[in-house]
Amino acid sequence: MVAVMDAEQFRQLGHALVDWIAELRETMETLPVMSQVRPGEIRARLPVSPPEHGGGAGDLIARLEADVMPGITHWNHPSFFAYFPSNSSYASILGDLACAGLGVQGMSWQTSPAATEIEEVVVDWLRQMVGLSDAWTGVIQDTASTATLGALICARERTLGFAPKGLQQGDGALVVYASSDAHSSVDKATRLAGFGRAHLRTIATDARRALRVDALAAAIEHDLAAGLRPCAVVATSGTTNTTAFDPIDGIADLTERHGMWLHVDAAMAGTAMVVPECRTLWHGIERADSLVLNPHKWMGVGFDLSAYYCRDPQHLIRVMGTNPAFLRTAQDGQVSNFRDWQIPLGRRFRALKLWFVLLDEGVAAIRTRVRRDLENAQWLAGEIKAAPDWQVVAPVALQTVCVRHVPVDLVEPAISAKNLAIAHHINGMGHAYLTPSLLDGRQILRISIGAERTERVHVAALWGALRAAAATV
Amino acid sequence: MVAVMDAEQFRQLGHALVDWIAELRETMETLPVMSQVRPGEIRARLPVSPPEHGGGAGDLIARLEADVMPGITHWNHPSFFAYFPSNSSYASILGDLACAGLGVQGMSWQTSPAATEIEEVVVDWLRQMVGLSDAWTGVIQDTASTATLGALICARERTLGFAPKGLQQGDGALVVYASSDAHSSVDKATRLAGFGRAHLRTIATDARRALRVDALAAAIEHDLAAGLRPCAVVATSGTTNTTAFDPIDGIADLTERHGMWLHVDAAMAGTAMVVPECRTLWHGIERADSLVLNPHKWMGVGFDLSAYYCRDPQHLIRVMGTNPAFLRTAQDGQVSNFRDWQIPLGRRFRALKLWFVLLDEGVAAIRTRVRRDLENAQWLAGEIKAAPDWQVVAPVALQTVCVRHVPVDLVEPAISAKNLAIAHHINGMGHAYLTPSLLDGRQILRISIGAERTERVHVAALWGALRAAAATV
Repeated sequence: MVAVMDAEQFRQLGHALVDWIAELRETMETLPVMSQVRPGEIRARLPVSPPEHGGGAGDLIARLEADVMPGITHWNHPSFFAYFPSNSSYASILGDLACAGLGVQGMSWQTSPAATEIEEVVVDWLRQMVGLSDAWTGVIQDTASTATLGALICARERTLGFAPKGLQQGDGALVVYASSDAHSSVDKATRLAGFGRAHLRTIATDARRALRVDALAAAIEHDLAAGLRPCAVVATSGTTNTTAFDPIDGIADLTERHGMWLHVDAAMAGTAMVVPECRTLWHGIERADSLVLNPHKWMGVGFDLSAYYCRDPQHLIRVMGTNPAFLRTAQDGQVSNFRDWQIPLGRRFRALKLWFVLLDEGVAAIRTRVRRDLENAQWLAGEIKAAPDWQVVAPVALQTVCVRHVPVDLVEPAISAKNLAIAHHINGMGHAYLTPSLLDGRQILRISIGAERTERVHVAALWGALRAAAATV
Repeated sequence: MVAVMDAEQFRQLGHALVDWIAELRETMETLPVMSQVRPGEIRARLPVSPPEHGGGAGDLIARLEADVMPGITHWNHPSFFAYFPSNSSYASILGDLACAGLGVQGMSWQTSPAATEIEEVVVDWLRQMVGLSDAWTGVIQDTASTATLGALICARERTLGFAPKGLQQGDGALVVYASSDAHSSVDKATRLAGFGRAHLRTIATDARRALRVDALAAAIEHDLAAGLRPCAVVATSGTTNTTAFDPIDGIADLTERHGMWLHVDAAMAGTAMVVPECRTLWHGIERADSLVLNPHKWMGVGFDLSAYYCRDPQHLIRVMGTNPAFLRTAQDGQVSNFRDWQIPLGRRFRALKLWFVLLDEGVAAIRTRVRRDLENAQWLAGEIKAAPDWQVVAPVALQTVCVRHVPVDLVEPAISAKNLAIAHHINGMGHAYLTPSLLDGRQILRISIGAERTERVHVAALWGALRAAAATV
């Protein structure tokens, strides 16, 4: 065999890399949150062709320092307020390391029984943690986008009755419904699943930015009258822009009446449900057919780990399953073969990192952290409401605060331009990272609180930075 | 904040886990390849509810030993001959560790420019390594199944011209074609993408188990005459069962004539193309619209890392792209936002592990390893052909050898039963792991050579075990 890294070198480099990661985490607060490189800058550092000869392993950490670090936006930084948190705690990192070291592929039970059975256990633990009944069966997927695509395909097949001609059967077209504030993945899934973008109905929202059940009912009736077939509703628990909550109970009245599939996108808000006082926000959840929540958001588990729950796993298996000769094993029928519960065939041992996080932290600590973030969001909203020239522009249901600077001497579009300039200024300075977004066509500043290490002091510093930026730009 | 693992504990546990992985790899040969646990055995070891309180991190390695290891099937074992190899070299493990430690989410260029740009570089290196022209643009996906689904959706949208009604537009139905030996993921993708299983044509194969171009031409003409719309052909370079190669050039004559999409599934065989003498096997590849190859098979990169290449990335972006306000960044238009090149929104920094493997090994070493495996397969095939009562039942184009024990005193179905018993005996003993499969309805033994540490001695030992099992069962 040719010489590649041996066990001794792996031990040395592995220890050094572990130390490097610890050092990075301990000093992260001194680094700019958002990478400050220009397009092409990282690419230009690497050769245009691969190395013909190896031996470069000894330089890996030097390469990380020189070629990678300038191009990293630090999602684990305590002043990361952009998008949604996607943190990885130390325990989660060890889970990923164990996953890589074991190097198994858990497509079938037999190809590593522990990968299947530990996933069954921890996904059931998670179900209990968020207060779902045992009518739900879970499986890990990569992301909520993929889970929502899978849900809409399951919905499609239930409506079609697994028609051999699929969507090309020539009867009334199937239609999907979601609020105007639903995540872009719903639009994408509708297109990818073949419904066609003309068969997605965007339902109006109310003053709290929740889907209006009356508007949904009207849209369904209109489609029925036109000979179309209402197929599925995607309700959101915690929309991306403002963490609004669609009224699941009212929506379920309609989906049940019309035999439609109800999928709930709780990608972000799912973690909040470890705190019992949040559970009224998804009242009616037990009436849904499927839901997705992301432990890789806000729960401290490293990306990627989405949990998809459904009430009829046999239907999921019929949609996703295949049974070629080369995949049959002696245990089929007695076990779960998770290859038949998802779009890909192969699967990593993702359950390890969720398991490690729970062993390290326990549920009580996660609950404490969620409550800390909810309180920080309320504190920030209170500060901003009390300040002249600033507005909180959407209800603060969870940990996301949508704000807007509204100086008395400006009107649109100058106010929007000023808010976008504030966002670019703060992100460009590197002290914090937030997301500029739009609400009703107007520029807002979207502040998502929930990184593992974000304490009140960091939220207060952001509020100071916002006021300073408003005075500067 | 509540107490969770701190940097010091992470260092200690991280070092210990690195050492544990090195020890596992060094002693793996003494372990059973296939896990010997019974269904439910691992699950029963874990509590039915999650820990309310944490502090269990100190036991992580003890938990791995007690609760996980008995349920592991060792894909990195030198006597792993099942499915296809999915190895992770030491360098790849370090890549995954760095990925977890950096903990970034690379959905957009801005959310970590290095994740995007290093991926652009290494995927282009890989393109050069397998001899593809620079007309191809690559992107990392999780698996070949997902990449093939994406390809068929791209094909569908090209044929439909992005019709607003999607597949529900009411014109002639779109049809997909693949050989009877194509991977189950083609059937699955056809169903998931909404074509309907009745619109997949399974084309007959020739004596070498390659798709018959004349049969494909006839099927296309038949569908055209019936008013249907031939949409896509999936050609396979290295089928799962026997590593047969479909004639891409002949297929491309038809897809070009009829304006169809040609997707090539080279999941396994792609790695072989680092060896120039293998490239005649996918002659015509430059005429395809898309292809997928898996560095997580045979190249030593840990699962999951599939490389999807296409000739028209703008079409891919139109199919997969979304542009909600909360995802817009200042660099849009100047950079690649890989969220728009794939089904999920979020993405890990997968490129790190491919980069690390190439820095450690270099292309020359990978070439040497591939040639070693090709030679081992030819050696085994030669031994088996020379043995009475044994047959090699398919051409050995690469590293997969399909064999069958055919004792003179038995007839079907007893021969099939005996071969299945041989497989279960060997897998159950734990000394080696191979895949029982079917060829033309008859049981065969499928031996896939290509684990990183599989040398001639392991292949010879398997051959001894096969003969011993045949004499025993």
